[in-house]
Amino acid sequence: MDTASHAIDSALVARFAAIVGERYAITDQGDIAPYLVEPRGLWHGAAPLVLRPGSVEEVSRIMRLASETHTPIVPQSGNTGLVGAQVPDATGRQVILSLSRLNRIREIDVQSNTVTVEAGVILQALQEAADAADRLFPLSLASQGSCQIGGNLSSNAGGTGVLAYGNARELCLGVEVVLPTGEVFDDLRKLKKDNTGYDLKNLFVGAEGTLGVITAAVMKLFPKPKGREVAFVGLASPQAALALFSMATDRAGPDLTAFELIARRPYDFTVRHAAGVVRPLAGDFPWYVLMEVSSGRSAEDAKELAEAILGAALQDGTIEDAVIAASLAQREAFWNFREMLPETQKVEGASIKHDISVPVSSIPAFIEKGAEAVRSVSPDARVVCFGHMGDGNLHYNISRPADGDDVAFLALYKPMNKAVHDVVRSFGGSISAEHGIGQLKRAELIATAPPMAIDLMRRVKAAFDPAGIMNPGKVV
Amino acid sequence: MDTASHAIDSALVARFAAIVGERYAITDQGDIAPYLVEPRGLWHGAAPLVLRPGSVEEVSRIMRLASETHTPIVPQSGNTGLVGAQVPDATGRQVILSLSRLNRIREIDVQSNTVTVEAGVILQALQEAADAADRLFPLSLASQGSCQIGGNLSSNAGGTGVLAYGNARELCLGVEVVLPTGEVFDDLRKLKKDNTGYDLKNLFVGAEGTLGVITAAVMKLFPKPKGREVAFVGLASPQAALALFSMATDRAGPDLTAFELIARRPYDFTVRHAAGVVRPLAGDFPWYVLMEVSSGRSAEDAKELAEAILGAALQDGTIEDAVIAASLAQREAFWNFREMLPETQKVEGASIKHDISVPVSSIPAFIEKGAEAVRSVSPDARVVCFGHMGDGNLHYNISRPADGDDVAFLALYKPMNKAVHDVVRSFGGSISAEHGIGQLKRAELIATAPPMAIDLMRRVKAAFDPAGIMNPGKVV
Repeated sequence: MDTASHAIDSALVARFAAIVGERYAITDQGDIAPYLVEPRGLWHGAAPLVLRPGSVEEVSRIMRLASETHTPIVPQSGNTGLVGAQVPDATGRQVILSLSRLNRIREIDVQSNTVTVEAGVILQALQEAADAADRLFPLSLASQGSCQIGGNLSSNAGGTGVLAYGNARELCLGVEVVLPTGEVFDDLRKLKKDNTGYDLKNLFVGAEGTLGVITAAVMKLFPKPKGREVAFVGLASPQAALALFSMATDRAGPDLTAFELIARRPYDFTVRHAAGVVRPLAGDFPWYVLMEVSSGRSAEDAKELAEAILGAALQDGTIEDAVIAASLAQREAFWNFREMLPETQKVEGASIKHDISVPVSSIPAFIEKGAEAVRSVSPDARVVCFGHMGDGNLHYNISRPADGDDVAFLALYKPMNKAVHDVVRSFGGSISAEHGIGQLKRAELIATAPPMAIDLMRRVKAAFDPAGIMNPGKVV
Repeated sequence: MDTASHAIDSALVARFAAIVGERYAITDQGDIAPYLVEPRGLWHGAAPLVLRPGSVEEVSRIMRLASETHTPIVPQSGNTGLVGAQVPDATGRQVILSLSRLNRIREIDVQSNTVTVEAGVILQALQEAADAADRLFPLSLASQGSCQIGGNLSSNAGGTGVLAYGNARELCLGVEVVLPTGEVFDDLRKLKKDNTGYDLKNLFVGAEGTLGVITAAVMKLFPKPKGREVAFVGLASPQAALALFSMATDRAGPDLTAFELIARRPYDFTVRHAAGVVRPLAGDFPWYVLMEVSSGRSAEDAKELAEAILGAALQDGTIEDAVIAASLAQREAFWNFREMLPETQKVEGASIKHDISVPVSSIPAFIEKGAEAVRSVSPDARVVCFGHMGDGNLHYNISRPADGDDVAFLALYKPMNKAVHDVVRSFGGSISAEHGIGQLKRAELIATAPPMAIDLMRRVKAAFDPAGIMNPGKVV
């Protein structure tokens, strides 16, 4: 269906506005502006209207009218996504549906360890509500102060808690979804086990708003750890990091709650550029790991666990040095150091980023082959490698040469992407481990995924959204 | 499409047989017989042909021919499913596709903690292969000596390891699927994170062979626990069991690896009828819990953990009595006692079974309301309640009155099912927590699920299998 042929005239704008009330139908272009651009500024769109419904019923009526009038709808929650999935296209014919007013936590069930939460709840607010109920909601992202649960689910968000707790998909037990027709699919169940037919929930999770609008979800909660220890480790190589990861997994199992790999270059960038940052380790090492272990048993147990792992790894020469945070403040400083890495890279000039994953065992070989691929495109470009090694997920970013030019370097975006992603594919990896596809990687996905996968995805899309009004131009 | 109009003539049989070779095309009805009936004998089917392909390529050629000739195909692996999903219908027009010869373990990657395994590998063989590689494959079912991974995935199998490790779905990282057209969808990836489009994997998992034929999968492995403790606990009520579950979860978190609830009646049945069984506890209690904790730290740590949880629960009066298995033999005896429950119920005459789940916090209320519902249908029927309480999943089975008649009781099958399932639905529960839909629960699912859910499932089915040749008559 060619949705482009249906422009949004003022009568239609008025009909949409009447659903949410004038106050929540934004038509002033100045007020609309923040909804049209995403955090990195790569994608700018246009829209005649932003609708801010206050209930699922209003979302349903919006979709019904959209369906009736073939109006393309772009769902948006916190607008922190990094692939342009939440931004309309440039035609000015797409209407933005903001979920931010659906911001109630409907229920916390501490015995079932579940929370029923609406799409517009800010991640940090959910973390805090869980904390107040003596529970942990483990999803944790750099953007948690503004990203919202609807977007977290639609993008299947990852972050630093995935290793032990899973990504947004694994944390979700049930969803409430408004379909393109306006019908409400209520699957808000708190069940850990349910084998009654196809897994529809996991189709909506990660679909970036292209199959329906997630309006609420049941998410898992966890007991709060009684102890947590964070260590900074210096190592000789990615192979050593892999060996440490194996040792830590063997002993801590699911209590290994973070395992972040950091190359010397981003480490040095952060030491150099971040105000007030203290070097976690006295010496310099080619590679670093930030490792966290948690314990439900006791604070003492977490400490013993961290010491046992690092003691054994020091003794057998797997690692060069390690320091366990001696205080809550130092623990936060270590995490803060990790979280500063993307920021401090910016100071070093333009960069070309990759959000990739490979099998964990392939991380060392990927790092070696990746560097060769980068050199083949730009001999002096600087690989800035860090990420969630325990998940096989690296933010494999390439900064321009130290004395290079931003514009000249960014002109290499496509060949650099291709060179790095070719290596990723050679390891059976993913070109989008956690950020999704959106607009940014759509063409590449379609060009390089197995044609069968694209075909099946398009069949799903056509089955759920035959009129093509649900966030068109995204994913497939 | 009306597949029934296409009978299987001998020429077509010969074409199918040529793909696998005569030796692996079973046409003798005596040899076919074991493929036509499932373990409980509820479903008997007919088939002119059982095909036993030896490669994915052969599966592909079979499906291509099936597609071309509109021949309905029923995939079957270990034939242990409990809902008739793997059994053909009575028309004699459906061909059985046995996956049992696809029984290679293609690769174990101990650093990535993955195993790549074909559909016909027997679960226990996979457990043993993992064990030999010093890893744990945690899926564990009563039928593990004969069930196969393809069926485990197609039914999203549960069992006793779900609490800590998840069901088959959560254990699966990637699949290889032959589509109804014969095309091979190769998504055999070892990635913990991959956000490149819709989650197709989770559609095939749990689809009971109605969307395609799973021929191989990448499954997760885990470190082997260094310590494991199993306790038998006596309690006053399901409320007390829920309180113990909360205490255990709080302290053990993911190291709480089993939490099985057992009512006094099935406990007594087992004491009475199982040969050589020793009473786990000296006294009698209204309810029992079998609790297991595991530790990656040490055997000593697992012992301390179990003692800490049970000590605290004894001290505050949550539980009445508890015994921790003192030896490996006693640990196995405790588990054996749990596994005998379904068998020993049989001795007490006919029963009507329910495989249900509710939110964990609703377990006590469900047990109360369930008993009322049972009494309303058969005042003297005996509720036999046990199951995976930590997952909210109970095998809520009803034995005929002690002095009752099997046939008269089984005549109550439908009203009893309805009465119990109505209570399940009132708690937002599931009428099939782990066994699936197959033929057994298809009519009820279609009649009682939200029409929107059925509609969406049928759209998925039509999108993937437009000719309707893939295990027709199952699920939706």
